[in-house]
Amino acid sequence: MTAAESILAGDRLALSRLLTQVENGTKEGEAELDLLFKNTGHAHLVGITGAPGTGKSSLVNQIALAARNPGEGVQRSVAIVAVDPSSPFSGGAVLGDRVRMRDLSGDPGVFIRSMATRGALGGLARKTAGVVQVLDAAGFDLILIETVGAGQSEVDIARLAHTTIVVENPGMGDDIQAIKAGILEIADILVINKADRPGVDNTERALRVNLELGYPQGERNHVFLEAGHVPEALTGTAQIEGKWIPPVLKTIAIQPSGIEELVKAIWQHREYLVRFGLLAARDQERLAHDFELALQARLKHDWRRRTKDADLKHVMNELYSRKISPRQAVDRLIER
Amino acid sequence: MTAAESILAGDRLALSRLLTQVENGTKEGEAELDLLFKNTGHAHLVGITGAPGTGKSSLVNQIALAARNPGEGVQRSVAIVAVDPSSPFSGGAVLGDRVRMRDLSGDPGVFIRSMATRGALGGLARKTAGVVQVLDAAGFDLILIETVGAGQSEVDIARLAHTTIVVENPGMGDDIQAIKAGILEIADILVINKADRPGVDNTERALRVNLELGYPQGERNHVFLEAGHVPEALTGTAQIEGKWIPPVLKTIAIQPSGIEELVKAIWQHREYLVRFGLLAARDQERLAHDFELALQARLKHDWRRRTKDADLKHVMNELYSRKISPRQAVDRLIER
Repeated sequence: MTAAESILAGDRLALSRLLTQVENGTKEGEAELDLLFKNTGHAHLVGITGAPGTGKSSLVNQIALAARNPGEGVQRSVAIVAVDPSSPFSGGAVLGDRVRMRDLSGDPGVFIRSMATRGALGGLARKTAGVVQVLDAAGFDLILIETVGAGQSEVDIARLAHTTIVVENPGMGDDIQAIKAGILEIADILVINKADRPGVDNTERALRVNLELGYPQGERNHVFLEAGHVPEALTGTAQIEGKWIPPVLKTIAIQPSGIEELVKAIWQHREYLVRFGLLAARDQERLAHDFELALQARLKHDWRRRTKDADLKHVMNELYSRKISPRQAVDRLIER
Repeated sequence: MTAAESILAGDRLALSRLLTQVENGTKEGEAELDLLFKNTGHAHLVGITGAPGTGKSSLVNQIALAARNPGEGVQRSVAIVAVDPSSPFSGGAVLGDRVRMRDLSGDPGVFIRSMATRGALGGLARKTAGVVQVLDAAGFDLILIETVGAGQSEVDIARLAHTTIVVENPGMGDDIQAIKAGILEIADILVINKADRPGVDNTERALRVNLELGYPQGERNHVFLEAGHVPEALTGTAQIEGKWIPPVLKTIAIQPSGIEELVKAIWQHREYLVRFGLLAARDQERLAHDFELALQARLKHDWRRRTKDADLKHVMNELYSRKISPRQAVDRLIER
């Protein structure tokens, strides 16, 4: 059996090995990924992002547990991709992973993968895309992509999921600067985690006001009346335009509390995407983005191969001594 | 007079016009920038980054005011570049700019430029580089580049300054997740702003512990003893290796308090960079990065021009229907 065949047959060890190859960008990994690619497109991808310290990891664990123990609902297999730009200072994911292991280990329907960036931020988005594709092909129903919101590339990774969850905490969002953050508009679901802390009402109000500003006048009342009860309750302009109004949900991940509503909102959002033909659109957007990343890497690689070291060195020295601008440096190297 | 000549002669209107052209990526703008480039390399570039809500804007204003009213020190001209990924929801920079105007307007030695991203995140780093180059050529002594820490590209922009200030608040940094953020290691100066709020001691301790982990055993005591008193107090291993130990400073920007120490630390850091020959190294790193961005844009542009619309459309459809992977799509389009 090829690695791809083993993975499709449910071999977890083969899966882990391929993921390592994809992370390392080996030729074998890319070839297997190409083989598996036609099997992708079935998983529901959920991105979870938010500022450091908001409790995203705990929330992700609880979503996974809920998907495994759904009560009367459908049980689903879950893969967690934790994109973790670990500080070289901290040793990174270790502690978070230990917490995960305690709750989720031993369940064959759960697969956890941490991706450290370690100074390789540039290639992170491309590697995460590959890892998600492999897990999708391997048949996981739900893929949770957790990223710390400290980086644009991490936000981008979460944003390209089918459903993006932005996690806030009480006390955040009341500030002008917080509104500037510009990540609210990528949220399909807003979660105020640690909702037992003081200031939760202010934060909820601030988030709703910000959401409200994003909708035309006629829909504003709708936001206040219906948020959190979509898409079943979609009425009026919202339904006509096929517009999803992000619910603002309150959770306490470590208790846990509010998780059931959050999981429900995830599947409601998927229903909504399917109903309005938007799931395919999001898929295409993500594939176009993955294509863009692969294109960039290839163009750079080809350019470097046909550029002589001596020419590059000479032009860079001209640049470093400010005889030419960066753009002029590029012109010289391309026109050779 | 050409625009470049007018700008070198101190014409602020010509400066504003060129900045707009650079932001819009016009050919005229790029040509003028090429002309001005040889005049760059004199300003000290300071990046200020941190999570939303930490009070970066107020801090930047206070640094600018202090540079204009230095007491017994040297008065310096200041340009502020506020890189602001405004939410389309919020109307963005308007309020922050009004606050700035009140404190700093009417002083010809201060120039303020806000850069909104408005969905153009990809090109933001390149545009900011251009804007900073123009301001540098225009003769400003100190260029403060304020970025909200919500995005990796914004962090990258700040990181490529000579001196990078990371702003935290009390209550941050005590959490595992906060340590994961991975932006501590880019800081030359750590600032705990809003230092009158509870939890300031915990945050300071957490930041120092994190810093400590970044240094080999022998230097650890040094961090605790000497941080905040470098480079004058550089002793032992730190001096031998030419290593800067980021001071952890406490400020209350709106009071203001602690600003003098912060400004002093900025110039101490510059002295340190000069003393150990690192200023040129940072300059080269930034120029190499600017080159990289220009190269990427050019390669993409050239590729698109030689790729037929019909071929691109066909291959993208193959990708969207998952017949081929993103990498295979790139292969097909490049090999044609």
